[in-house]
Amino acid sequence: MESGSWEPGRPLRIALLGCGVVGTQVARLLTRDAEELGQRVGVPVELAGIAVRRLGRERDLDVPDELFTTDAAGLVARGDIDVVIEVIGGIDPARELILSALQHGASVVTANKALLAEDGATLYEAAEKAERDLYFEAAVAGAIPIVRPLRESLAGDSVQRVIGIVNGTTNFILDAMTTTGQGFNEALDEAQRLGFAEADPTADIEGFDAAAKAAILSELAFHTRVTLGDVHREGITEVTAADIRSAEDMGCVVKQLAICEKLDTPNGPAVSARVHPAMISRDHPLASVRGAYNAVFVESESAGQLMFYGPGAGGAPTASAVLGDVVSVARNRRNGVFGPGESTHAHLEVLDMGQARTRYHVSLDVDDRAGVLAQVANQFAEFDVSIRTVRQEGSGSDAQLVIVTHEADDAALAATVNSLRDLDGVRAVRSVMRVEGGV
Amino acid sequence: MESGSWEPGRPLRIALLGCGVVGTQVARLLTRDAEELGQRVGVPVELAGIAVRRLGRERDLDVPDELFTTDAAGLVARGDIDVVIEVIGGIDPARELILSALQHGASVVTANKALLAEDGATLYEAAEKAERDLYFEAAVAGAIPIVRPLRESLAGDSVQRVIGIVNGTTNFILDAMTTTGQGFNEALDEAQRLGFAEADPTADIEGFDAAAKAAILSELAFHTRVTLGDVHREGITEVTAADIRSAEDMGCVVKQLAICEKLDTPNGPAVSARVHPAMISRDHPLASVRGAYNAVFVESESAGQLMFYGPGAGGAPTASAVLGDVVSVARNRRNGVFGPGESTHAHLEVLDMGQARTRYHVSLDVDDRAGVLAQVANQFAEFDVSIRTVRQEGSGSDAQLVIVTHEADDAALAATVNSLRDLDGVRAVRSVMRVEGGV
Repeated sequence: MESGSWEPGRPLRIALLGCGVVGTQVARLLTRDAEELGQRVGVPVELAGIAVRRLGRERDLDVPDELFTTDAAGLVARGDIDVVIEVIGGIDPARELILSALQHGASVVTANKALLAEDGATLYEAAEKAERDLYFEAAVAGAIPIVRPLRESLAGDSVQRVIGIVNGTTNFILDAMTTTGQGFNEALDEAQRLGFAEADPTADIEGFDAAAKAAILSELAFHTRVTLGDVHREGITEVTAADIRSAEDMGCVVKQLAICEKLDTPNGPAVSARVHPAMISRDHPLASVRGAYNAVFVESESAGQLMFYGPGAGGAPTASAVLGDVVSVARNRRNGVFGPGESTHAHLEVLDMGQARTRYHVSLDVDDRAGVLAQVANQFAEFDVSIRTVRQEGSGSDAQLVIVTHEADDAALAATVNSLRDLDGVRAVRSVMRVEGGV
Repeated sequence: MESGSWEPGRPLRIALLGCGVVGTQVARLLTRDAEELGQRVGVPVELAGIAVRRLGRERDLDVPDELFTTDAAGLVARGDIDVVIEVIGGIDPARELILSALQHGASVVTANKALLAEDGATLYEAAEKAERDLYFEAAVAGAIPIVRPLRESLAGDSVQRVIGIVNGTTNFILDAMTTTGQGFNEALDEAQRLGFAEADPTADIEGFDAAAKAAILSELAFHTRVTLGDVHREGITEVTAADIRSAEDMGCVVKQLAICEKLDTPNGPAVSARVHPAMISRDHPLASVRGAYNAVFVESESAGQLMFYGPGAGGAPTASAVLGDVVSVARNRRNGVFGPGESTHAHLEVLDMGQARTRYHVSLDVDDRAGVLAQVANQFAEFDVSIRTVRQEGSGSDAQLVIVTHEADDAALAATVNSLRDLDGVRAVRSVMRVEGGV
């Protein structure tokens, strides 16, 4: 018998790696709903072990003590485990444990976006070699089904663009800034007080978390390998109350967006993936995503515009996504098959940020005299950037130009803005922000 | 060799039944994207035949003439077809063709909500017996992935409630009434003029289409067989401009909703499924679904609130959903396996409308004299219905009472309203509408 292969008649054995916020919910539901889950899988399922960092910690779980172990490596290598759930997070030891689990015949369900974005190829390859499943619905946008729709529901369509609000912390902060007029630091404090931001919020506010998800979404949408390093990343720490007000004046809101696009280039279609704050029209479905909620907006050739909305984090929502995957891979184990693997057959070029097509909103403090607008307009023309609207505001020392461009290469837009800084009549570049989501 | 079983090496053969609005798009994409689809499936796919009612019709398709046939029964029984796509619609001959396709070894992808809601059990049973797939993402809410999320993504969760805007025609009409103040007939005329309503709009405006989808959604959400006859159905033809204004006064909009709920009863959990117009708060995510768009809002125990939004009809969007299913069942055929079948193990009781828990908004024309409010309030108390708010409006011959109840059995609410009609001080019941979607 092959190591880890399931013999009909015995229950499917599930091992859980990690028992933090998500793991506790997974263990609770796997225990409480074992019978119902077994019905859905078609054979009984059984929680066979839980790897934790320390034993003896108080856990609000109705699980026998002997299921807990600190020997995660031993648990995944036991040889009689059918499904391993990895909710430890981080690169190591999660990677070694997942690889060992696959080698020992288990399918793997993981919520580990960082690892998938960094080194998904190694995991996919190991899963394919082992003829086991690697499922990861919980890695992107928590409970919101988005991995399966991209991998399967839209498998007969051509996705053009995915725009996601995939980080609840930054959406909470920007939403608070929008509704209360708070500055960034105040809003971050409030988010931390309410538990929507961690004590060290770097991964969220600097865009690392969203960038990992953008890499995963891009790969799924465009059948091309995209890793974290391919994703342009900007955080929200520079967003000011003035930016938020400027957005309002334009009928927009500011959102931290993960944007994954297929662009036409002279060399054929290519992929662009980026994470940054942007203005988006209040009429766009993403504009009304409030608080810590997540949403993923998909534009595809045949289906048109789809949006998937829901809680993007939290123990129970993430556990829901994990258990949906567990039922799928358990059904597959029962049937001796495995689901879709990595799909990178398109091998599209991945563009750098300078080649992304964006629009800019630029506010300039300018001298209040004739000729400044012409000077500024010339500068845009020099970089071949077309202006869509210009608004002059205030007067005297308060004179401002607010410019919104048409779409252009991000490199040209950035170069234009840089050149404006040195312009005689321009006293300061007050704010620069991209505008996304169509008109 | 088993009839219809696929031998490695040959392409997967796909037969298409029906070449109307949806079928044309399916044929176009299957032809144009054959290579890309083959990559995604893992083996080449081939459009092997198209059954149509009449040959020789002008079709904007780059497909060899010899693929067309009027002999649908012969096509599905050929024995070398791996996947049959049914987009004819209606009960007969669609049912016989699907059953024959399964018996002859093909998996089936269908968009046929009417047939699934009427007699899904027969199809499921035939698919299970044949060890073939029956997939139907396109049957509910067009391009929006909702069948797969319920069948798979939420398979580890417990769905409590599904509220859908699943009929684009009625959403278009109610949205037009809301934004323009039009009456029902005017809005219907406009919808017909713009192609959002058919010449005979009965199936849409009387709720038959939405009721079929409610049956399908209920079965998927609650693992219990639910058919069209189990769904309470009311159309939108009685919705007046005054109802729309009343909703506005309450901070609500009127939507035609398909509501599928799991309710606790003294005999344990039970299922309720109903389609009717209702007021829903402007703050509810479903309230902002405009025009002919569809959306499905899902409340589940662990995942919380999810929403799926997109185009609910149209040739290309529906074709996207069909082709997503085609890729899934083709992958399954290649791997010699089949996906999830009917899941009705919960066998919950299906309640009638009287047992559904709802809230009512009631406007009464009343005599402008002391004591009428007390009379009316007494009537509600008699049926054990608790009042949440009462507003008195106008005076003299224009005096009105606007009452919103707390939640109660629909039977008690309906009986209360009936009894009000005979009350002395009540001159007329001006409007009655349910209020849904929480506070």
